Amino acid sequence: MRPVFPTAALVALACLVPLAAQTPDPAPEADAAVLRRLFDAALDGSPAYGQLRELTERFPGRLSGTPAYDGAAQWSLETLRALGCDRTELQPVTVPYWERGAPEVVHLHAAEGSGPLAALALGGSVGTPAGGLRAAVVEVQSFEQLAAAGVAGKIVFFNRPMDPREITPGRAYGGAVNQRSRGATEAAKHGAVGVLVRSMTHALDDVPHTGAMSYLPDVPRIPAAAISTLAAERLSRTLRAQPAAEVEMTLHCSPQPDRPSANVIGEIRGSEFPEKVILVGGHLDSWDITPGAHDDGTGCIQSIEVLRLLKAVGYQPRHTIRCVLYANEENGLRGALEYTRVVAEKKEEHVLALETDSGGFRPAGFNLGNPAGDAHLRAARWRELFVPYGIHVFQKGTGGADVGPLLRYGYTVAGLMPDSQRYFDYHHTRIDTIDQVNRREFELGAAAMAALVYLVDRHGL
Amino acid sequence: MRPVFPTAALVALACLVPLAAQTPDPAPEADAAVLRRLFDAALDGSPAYGQLRELTERFPGRLSGTPAYDGAAQWSLETLRALGCDRTELQPVTVPYWERGAPEVVHLHAAEGSGPLAALALGGSVGTPAGGLRAAVVEVQSFEQLAAAGVAGKIVFFNRPMDPREITPGRAYGGAVNQRSRGATEAAKHGAVGVLVRSMTHALDDVPHTGAMSYLPDVPRIPAAAISTLAAERLSRTLRAQPAAEVEMTLHCSPQPDRPSANVIGEIRGSEFPEKVILVGGHLDSWDITPGAHDDGTGCIQSIEVLRLLKAVGYQPRHTIRCVLYANEENGLRGALEYTRVVAEKKEEHVLALETDSGGFRPAGFNLGNPAGDAHLRAARWRELFVPYGIHVFQKGTGGADVGPLLRYGYTVAGLMPDSQRYFDYHHTRIDTIDQVNRREFELGAAAMAALVYLVDRHGL
Repeated sequence: MRPVFPTAALVALACLVPLAAQTPDPAPEADAAVLRRLFDAALDGSPAYGQLRELTERFPGRLSGTPAYDGAAQWSLETLRALGCDRTELQPVTVPYWERGAPEVVHLHAAEGSGPLAALALGGSVGTPAGGLRAAVVEVQSFEQLAAAGVAGKIVFFNRPMDPREITPGRAYGGAVNQRSRGATEAAKHGAVGVLVRSMTHALDDVPHTGAMSYLPDVPRIPAAAISTLAAERLSRTLRAQPAAEVEMTLHCSPQPDRPSANVIGEIRGSEFPEKVILVGGHLDSWDITPGAHDDGTGCIQSIEVLRLLKAVGYQPRHTIRCVLYANEENGLRGALEYTRVVAEKKEEHVLALETDSGGFRPAGFNLGNPAGDAHLRAARWRELFVPYGIHVFQKGTGGADVGPLLRYGYTVAGLMPDSQRYFDYHHTRIDTIDQVNRREFELGAAAMAALVYLVDRHGL
Repeated sequence: MRPVFPTAALVALACLVPLAAQTPDPAPEADAAVLRRLFDAALDGSPAYGQLRELTERFPGRLSGTPAYDGAAQWSLETLRALGCDRTELQPVTVPYWERGAPEVVHLHAAEGSGPLAALALGGSVGTPAGGLRAAVVEVQSFEQLAAAGVAGKIVFFNRPMDPREITPGRAYGGAVNQRSRGATEAAKHGAVGVLVRSMTHALDDVPHTGAMSYLPDVPRIPAAAISTLAAERLSRTLRAQPAAEVEMTLHCSPQPDRPSANVIGEIRGSEFPEKVILVGGHLDSWDITPGAHDDGTGCIQSIEVLRLLKAVGYQPRHTIRCVLYANEENGLRGALEYTRVVAEKKEEHVLALETDSGGFRPAGFNLGNPAGDAHLRAARWRELFVPYGIHVFQKGTGGADVGPLLRYGYTVAGLMPDSQRYFDYHHTRIDTIDQVNRREFELGAAAMAALVYLVDRHGL
C-alpha cells in the first residue's frame, strides 16, 4: 500500500459520505454514564499501578535487544492474555543495538575546581580511545557559532538551555535537543574531537539525562556525553575564569550489530467491524540506565488498562481494540516502522491510533491528526463529556513518534496530552522511577484514553 | 459594616450601572502582551522558588504562636519591604495555641501482629492520662454506626477512606474529614475513651496526617490521633481476625492559653483608587510537624510574587494591591477573622480578594464568588487570554477559608485552583517539603494570579 494523501476534493467528498462506523449521536447522558463507569473502574481498585511497579522494578533498563526488554515483552504478553485478550502476538522486529559498557567518566581539570562532572554517554555514541580523551573545551550555544569558535582538536560543550519561558515543555525540548541529536556531527565537521551536551531538562540538579544521537556517513564519529545541568553551570563558570581548563572523557560505549526484538500486541475482537482497528499504545523499551516509569512504562500500562477498563464496565466494542507496545522507540523507531509496514501490507484499516508517551501525569486532553486536518475538531464535540474530568484540550497534532507513521497511510492518529511540566525532570534519567508517578494522575490518564476509545468505537470520529 | 446581600432587584440594577473602576475592554492584544510578560518574568529567573526554600527550611513547624511562626512573619515582612512595598504591617492577632509535647505512641497489642502504628495526635486534642490509655478497639465508618457499635470504654477507630472515585480530591476530603474534626466528640457521646482516625489521604503509605479537631462544651474531651493509611489497613485486618486486640495510646499534647500573633501585610498603593484594595494572600502558619511547603508556603510566596511580578513588568496598578499572609488558618482562622473585622470597621472596599491555599501545583483556573453569584462568569470573559497557559476553569466558589469571610461583607473573593490530585499525599505531614514542589508548576500559579490581578485592576470585574 502506498502512502495516501487525500486531495482537497477527496476530503470534501469524505465530508459528505457518512463513515461506515458512524452512528447518530445518542443522548449524551448515556455516554456520560459510560464515561463515569470507566473513570470509577480506573480510580477504584485498578491493578494498573501495581502492574507499573512490577514492570519498572522487574525490568529496568529495558533497551530493546536486551534481556530486560525480552523479559518485559514476555511479561506484557502474559498480562494481556490474563485480562482476556482474544489474540496476542509478539511481532518480530530487528532493532539497532548499542551498549554503554562500564560507567563513563568525565573529569574537569582546572587550576581551580577540578573534579568529576556527572555524565552519561549519549545513546548511539562511539566510545573514546582506550585510556580516554583529554582536550581543551569550547562552549557554544548553537551550531552557527562553531565555525568561528576554533574547535579543531577540542571538545565542544553545547550549553544552550531549554527555554524556561516556553509554556509547553515539549516545545522547549524541541528547541534545544538538536545539540544532543546532531551536536557530535556538527562539531566534527569543524574538527572537534568530542562533545559534551547540557542535559535536556528545566531542572537544576546533578542528574544527567541520556538520549539518542546519530552520525552522518561522511563525517568523523566523535564521542558524545550529556552532563547534568549543575555540571554544565560549573563547567561554564570554570571556562569563563580559566579558558585553558581541560576535560577528560572516558566512554566505554559502542554501537553493536542489530538484534532481534518484538512489538507486543493484544486485542479484543470487534463485534461489528472486527477488521477495523482502534489502536492504543506506548513504547515498551526504555534507556539502559532507567526504570522508565514515565518514559514510557506508564504509557504501556495505560494502554493495557484501556482494554481492561472496557471489559470491566462490560462494554463490547464494535471495532477491534488493539494494544500495541512498541519496541525501539528510543533508538531507532523500528517497532513503529515494522508495525506500520505490516498494516500497509495487510491493508488493515485503523479507525484511530492513540499513543501515550508523554508521562503518567494528569490528562489535559488529546492531540489528534488526520489527513483532512479536522480530527481534533471532530473529537471536540465530546468536550463537555470530558470537562468533569478536568480535560479541556483537543488540538491538532500528529499523535506521537510511534503512531505518527500511520498518519502517512491516511489513518487518524492521536496522543494523550498529560500535563507535562514535570516530565523533563525525569526524562531519560535514573530517577524516572515509580515514586515519581502519582497513582491518581496515572489512573486518570488511562480512563481518559478509555473514554476516547469508547466514544470513537461507539460513534466514529 | 453589616453583611450586604444584594436582592435580585439590586443585582439587576448593578448590571446596568458601570462599576467605578470598570473601563471599556481595550484591544485584547495589549492584555495578551502584558500576560506574556508576567509569565516570562515568573518563569525566567524569579527569586520565588528560592524564597520558598528559605521559608520552609528556616521556619518549619510554624504553628501560629510559636517562635517559628514569629520568625517566618518577620522574614516575610522583610521580604515584602525588600521588593519595594509602599506599606508593610504586622497586624496583631490573638490565636489559640496547642502543643504536641513529646512524640505520641500508638501501639497495637494482639496475639498476632503487635507493634507500633504510625500516628500523630490531632491538633487541639487533649493528651491521654499519664502512663497512656489502653482499650479494645471498635472500627466504624460513620457516626451513625456508633450507637449500635457498643463503644463505651473503648477506642473508636474511624476508617472511612476518602472516596477514590471523586475526581476533585478536595471533595473526597470533605466527605471524610468529619471523622477527624468531630469524631472525638461523637464517640465520646457514646462513652468512648479515645479515637483513632484513618489519615485523610488517597495515598497508601505509612505517613500519618494531622489536622484540626475540636470539642463541644458539654461532651467529655477524649484524646484523638490520626494513623497512617497503612496502619489503618493493618489495624482493620487485625480487628477482623482478632476482635479482642487492644490499642495503647500515649499522647502528650494539650491545649494551652491563647498567644499573641500577627498577620503580615504588604501593599503597593494604587495610582487611581488607592482606597480600593485587590488582595492576594495565603496563610503563613503550618502544622507543627511539617515544613508546610504546599500548605501553604507556596501560597504565601506566590502572593508575595504577585507584587514582585507587577513591579517587574513595570505595571503601575490603579488600585492598591495588598498581600496578606494570614495567621492561624490551621487551628482557629483568627487571622482571617481579625483582618475581616478591621476591613469592616474601616469600610475598606475590596475589589477582589484572591486566595491561594490548595498547593503549588499547575494552575487549572479560579473559583470566584460574589453576592450576585456571577463573578465567575464575569472573569470567564478573559478565558481566551488564559488558555495559552493551560488555564481553562472559571467556576463559582467562595475563594477559600481566609478570604471567605469577606464575601459576607459583599466583596468579591476568588481562589486559585491548582491541579490538586497530589495535594493530599502531602497535606499536614512531615513530607510536605519543597522537594515535592515543582518549580515550574509553582511559578505558573503565581503568574496566573498576577494575570488575574492585572486584568481586574485594569478593567474591573
